[in-house]
Amino acid sequence: MRISIVGLGLIGGSFAIDLRKAGLADALLGVETSGEHARRALEMRLVDRVVSLPEAMRDSDALLLATPVDAIAAMLPTVLDAARPDQTVIDLGSAKLRIVEPARGHVNRARYVAAHPMAGTENAGPDAALEGLFRGKTVLLCDLDDSAPDACKTALEIFHAVGMKFEFMASDQHDRHAAYVSHLSHVAAYALSLAVQTEEKAGYAVPRLAGGGFASTVRLAKSSPEMWVPIFRHNREQVLKSIEAFSERLQAFKACLDAEDYKKLEALIRDANQIRDLL
Amino acid sequence: MRISIVGLGLIGGSFAIDLRKAGLADALLGVETSGEHARRALEMRLVDRVVSLPEAMRDSDALLLATPVDAIAAMLPTVLDAARPDQTVIDLGSAKLRIVEPARGHVNRARYVAAHPMAGTENAGPDAALEGLFRGKTVLLCDLDDSAPDACKTALEIFHAVGMKFEFMASDQHDRHAAYVSHLSHVAAYALSLAVQTEEKAGYAVPRLAGGGFASTVRLAKSSPEMWVPIFRHNREQVLKSIEAFSERLQAFKACLDAEDYKKLEALIRDANQIRDLL
Repeated sequence: MRISIVGLGLIGGSFAIDLRKAGLADALLGVETSGEHARRALEMRLVDRVVSLPEAMRDSDALLLATPVDAIAAMLPTVLDAARPDQTVIDLGSAKLRIVEPARGHVNRARYVAAHPMAGTENAGPDAALEGLFRGKTVLLCDLDDSAPDACKTALEIFHAVGMKFEFMASDQHDRHAAYVSHLSHVAAYALSLAVQTEEKAGYAVPRLAGGGFASTVRLAKSSPEMWVPIFRHNREQVLKSIEAFSERLQAFKACLDAEDYKKLEALIRDANQIRDLL
Repeated sequence: MRISIVGLGLIGGSFAIDLRKAGLADALLGVETSGEHARRALEMRLVDRVVSLPEAMRDSDALLLATPVDAIAAMLPTVLDAARPDQTVIDLGSAKLRIVEPARGHVNRARYVAAHPMAGTENAGPDAALEGLFRGKTVLLCDLDDSAPDACKTALEIFHAVGMKFEFMASDQHDRHAAYVSHLSHVAAYALSLAVQTEEKAGYAVPRLAGGGFASTVRLAKSSPEMWVPIFRHNREQVLKSIEAFSERLQAFKACLDAEDYKKLEALIRDANQIRDLL
């Protein structure tokens, strides 16, 4: 299979490494607007060649769109305009509805598969690409009814090759879900980082002294705005709801401390502990 | 050196493993109110014997108090009453002021060293004890002016033996600091767990699908109320302040999304990213 990867950052680069290793790709092409990233991707031999998007469309059986979600949304209609009946276009965006909706009713909609591989790190660019990043993780496949069976098969082959498990859901369900398990975690980490840095500036050498717990909780605050502003923009309503739900729980916690109601505080913590059974 | 460890859980048990390995302890005694934990600690050979607190006082050169902070505060005056001039008592609590203050002016105050090893996991009990838990981590030593030089030396030997780096500060400064880098991280994780679980109960199989980012951010929500309610209680004022600072940043984030001010959202994220330079 000839595979093109559009966007050679953390996600695209990691797919390149594992697809090559799995032997699924006879040819691996890259599309990358950053000259620096393109150069690094070639140095690292992530892809065989870096080409333009029209060349990638011409010379590949499957395309993986691995750019920030706003760029995916902008390019998808054009990509589908040019899609051949034997070609599969897969997007890997972290918010789905505003990518999927404009493609609804497109004459080539069936060539397109909407996917969200639930894996990543806080780092960006080709140098962040990791072997085995997706192994054992889940890919959420959305609205498969709207994709052609052979396009679904190609997508499943690709995700299987990198070791992923499959889950299926509608795009709107995906976005609500992703708001809670992924986007909200980033918001919480960003807010924690900002709060701690304010203290730091006030003369407390806070982060230098921190243990592993703080590092773990704040890790996602290192994630880039280039990737995350578009995600928050695309999934704005659901993210706002999740922040509200989170704020309510935070206020409930604060209210217990305010009122020195330690019985209730203990009950809240015991409820929170149940995440053990769910992860 | 004959060392007694009071409380054979995650922290006490991990000290037992590494102090034995370092060859610093000729004899290692344990004090443990839970019969089950005492039995496990002996099975695991964490300590040579489990004894009563008075026996531990009689038969050891140094005592490490590694129970929840309320139990430390309750036992410290009695322990100091019995402390010999050649004996060192070290507490390992995560909040200091309400442990240190009642000991101020005690005739044997100089035998006591207040310490907070900044290391741990979300697990509890002797089975959670980990070899190397403290290696490369920082121990905050508080109010050392109030401790006798030979007691300080003993404490430094013990923390050095398990591979820790030292930082020195006043108890009140410690508590403000710890609220931000440790206690607030736990509050945020508990609130995140509660918010996500509510969604889960509403029929969204949220956590099952989560990636590594969520797992990392929510990890501390598994931490037990037995340890954490007393910490929040002891450091209530500072934790309340840190929750307020965190809530403000969260609301600032939400306000950007509400107003669709993505330039400002990007600026907030860039500020949050600076945690990279501090960790």
